Amino acid sequence: MLSAAPVLDRADADFENSVGRLVDLLRIPSISTKPDHAHEVRRAAEWMATELSGLGFQASVRPTAGHPMVVAHHPGPGGDAGPHLLYYGHYDVQPPEPLELWNSPPFEPAIVEAQHGRRIVARGAVDDKGQVMTFLEAFRAWHAVHGTLPVRVSVLLEGEEETGSPSLLPFLRANREELQADVCIITDTNSWTIDTPAITTRLRGLLYVEATLHGPSHDLHSGLYGGAVLNPINALTRILGQIHDEQGRVRFPGFYDDVREPSAEELGIWRDLGFSEADFLAGVGLKTPAGEGGRSALERLWSRPTCDINGIWGGYTGEGAKTVIAAKATAKFSCRLVAEQDPAKVLAGIRQFLEERTPPDARWEIRTFGQSPAFQVPTDSRYLRAAMAGLGDIYANRPVLIGSGGSIPVAGYVREALGYDTILVGFGLEDDRIHSPNEKFELKCLHNGIRSHVAMLARFAELG
Amino acid sequence: MLSAAPVLDRADADFENSVGRLVDLLRIPSISTKPDHAHEVRRAAEWMATELSGLGFQASVRPTAGHPMVVAHHPGPGGDAGPHLLYYGHYDVQPPEPLELWNSPPFEPAIVEAQHGRRIVARGAVDDKGQVMTFLEAFRAWHAVHGTLPVRVSVLLEGEEETGSPSLLPFLRANREELQADVCIITDTNSWTIDTPAITTRLRGLLYVEATLHGPSHDLHSGLYGGAVLNPINALTRILGQIHDEQGRVRFPGFYDDVREPSAEELGIWRDLGFSEADFLAGVGLKTPAGEGGRSALERLWSRPTCDINGIWGGYTGEGAKTVIAAKATAKFSCRLVAEQDPAKVLAGIRQFLEERTPPDARWEIRTFGQSPAFQVPTDSRYLRAAMAGLGDIYANRPVLIGSGGSIPVAGYVREALGYDTILVGFGLEDDRIHSPNEKFELKCLHNGIRSHVAMLARFAELG
Repeated sequence: MLSAAPVLDRADADFENSVGRLVDLLRIPSISTKPDHAHEVRRAAEWMATELSGLGFQASVRPTAGHPMVVAHHPGPGGDAGPHLLYYGHYDVQPPEPLELWNSPPFEPAIVEAQHGRRIVARGAVDDKGQVMTFLEAFRAWHAVHGTLPVRVSVLLEGEEETGSPSLLPFLRANREELQADVCIITDTNSWTIDTPAITTRLRGLLYVEATLHGPSHDLHSGLYGGAVLNPINALTRILGQIHDEQGRVRFPGFYDDVREPSAEELGIWRDLGFSEADFLAGVGLKTPAGEGGRSALERLWSRPTCDINGIWGGYTGEGAKTVIAAKATAKFSCRLVAEQDPAKVLAGIRQFLEERTPPDARWEIRTFGQSPAFQVPTDSRYLRAAMAGLGDIYANRPVLIGSGGSIPVAGYVREALGYDTILVGFGLEDDRIHSPNEKFELKCLHNGIRSHVAMLARFAELG
Repeated sequence: MLSAAPVLDRADADFENSVGRLVDLLRIPSISTKPDHAHEVRRAAEWMATELSGLGFQASVRPTAGHPMVVAHHPGPGGDAGPHLLYYGHYDVQPPEPLELWNSPPFEPAIVEAQHGRRIVARGAVDDKGQVMTFLEAFRAWHAVHGTLPVRVSVLLEGEEETGSPSLLPFLRANREELQADVCIITDTNSWTIDTPAITTRLRGLLYVEATLHGPSHDLHSGLYGGAVLNPINALTRILGQIHDEQGRVRFPGFYDDVREPSAEELGIWRDLGFSEADFLAGVGLKTPAGEGGRSALERLWSRPTCDINGIWGGYTGEGAKTVIAAKATAKFSCRLVAEQDPAKVLAGIRQFLEERTPPDARWEIRTFGQSPAFQVPTDSRYLRAAMAGLGDIYANRPVLIGSGGSIPVAGYVREALGYDTILVGFGLEDDRIHSPNEKFELKCLHNGIRSHVAMLARFAELG
């Protein structure tokens, strides 16, 4: 059995270089939602493959219909060396807009002193480049000390996570043999606090819709037509303004049909986490709970579906006044889904909701960007226990099992296409501003993440 | 008495040059709503002043807090030469966006053959550059034939009409002595049909508001926060979706308090105009009447107040998906006002409506761009009768008295600041696409407008 202690020392000694490598990766603006950034997404893929090749992996950049996948395999020490792990992460990032709200340019990483010591500020700092580097740097430390990893490891990094992972499921299906392993490790979630590690056992799914309401054949003067013709922006606000009822419940037909209530046991675990809704809200400048009435914040975030409008536009949006009635208006909105909800059925409900409210002479143009069901991870697997033990080796506080309001489609896809389970273990913090201006990753979290992956690899090897 | 007949002949003979001069003016992108176009607005003012100077006017470009005014005075033939007229127009234009919907560049005027013969397509073709040129070319013809105009004429051209004329009332007040006249002539309205001239006796007022709803302190990830925090875009749609009730009436408190119903006589005149609501709607790709129930289309357009959202934006508006909860959302909306409605009182009602619906922890940021009351022109003045006679000299069809749904603040300001009445006589058509892509002016309308102003000048001179 290879010893983890010198590997942890090596990771500690090399930490400043780890930060430097993360800075290099963050300089690549691999924005997958912007078609004109495709070459940057590819550059990030190649950067990852080169790094993995240097650590004893057989790594390749593999084409898809969209952005490429990075696939890498490490044979481990050989022999009876524990389970075969598949590490998943993504190297693409969200668009940085609105740029004017960043304190430093989003793709020029800044190291800033704050309450927890140093942090790195950049788009992708934590989501997911910084998190990917926690396991990549753990591999590096093992490779430096022992010349190998303690178990057999494969890596799959995608470049379309922020666009709903359209190529992922087809890729998993097409490469089912090559991607066989015993368990998948995903590092794209949060710790519970900076000092309390967590494994996430519930994720919400996602359905993302863009709906345009078309009315008059062209933009009209609001004086000469106002009061006598359909105004698509007024109509769109009237329709989308009905998405929620007075109790904060979503009105799409059949929306709650397949929603399962969490078990009494789960509710008890969540209650014991000591979550402060007041602190959670204060962190984003708010005081008053929102959403469905009669449920705790964690219950709303982890076990209830939602509908949020993510973007809206129509008519004149420049400075000053333009007295126009626009020919059309558009909104992007998305539903977070929970266990047993079928994205296709929810989409049918959305279409029905919109169609039933279509004004005379108007028509909808509806597009979808990504649909994934919710996911629940089994809490009784030996891989989960090994990961918990590894986290326990690094942190003073005991690791906790939590849910997450976010969506990581790969967890469901791995089970569906490859047939094995997933452990979601990540090192982000709630206040990391992912998808927002001034996204950051605490260097303490980066460091603990690297150390945790070093220790978890040793614990997985112990499974034999 | 100077004869109009040779002046009409001269205007006819010079018409192609008139078109060429309008093309020159339309090439100047004098977009008053865009701060970076201020020099272009000024260039248009200087162009107008130069033209007027060449026609015997003493013309000057006069500074304001915003874009400049062009003021010009012509002494007329001297002696007892009828009333002193003040011609008003504006040389600024609306923004041309969305650019992709134009068939030709908005500031490269195109002459196109269509059902009524040639038309000129450009931003400002009819609103108001083409209309301004109808009286300027009439002045030119009088000047060419008789070396003078038949009456005393002043001209006031502003460059802020499309931004709500913020400098106009202060300018009128500050130059009250210089701008004294007997009646104001505004050419910024429509004919009834291409063959039936019209004088507009009713205009709606305007109140233009921009409201931003601020929520969380920064943009949030819709997975990690969705269902537990205020979403300002959802809230904005919910609030603005309540502007109209089921009957299409505006819900702002007190909105209808001061609205006066049109007289039975007016309603009768409007009925006799033979307006086809079906044709009106078909012209913009619609079939179904909208707006307040139980009232004719002309009644809704000319005598009823409205609220139209003119623009809305918030969150992610690019291609693809971004799962964000935006920190804020904004809408621009405007009310068309009718006689006796006080814009300040309506604004107070709007503020109350918004404030009463403010979600907890949210706040409004409210700006206004222009407020003007509605205007009704007396129908019994001798100037109106003279203008009607002049129109009757040119067209085979009798001129009609109509209303307009649009807003021309100057009509009210002239009465308030200068103390005299206004005649609204213009030559646009309903399908001219003002404020929209592919704005146009029929050359037949331009020609009839020039001829009508030649004839009206003669009829005004007859008043002695």
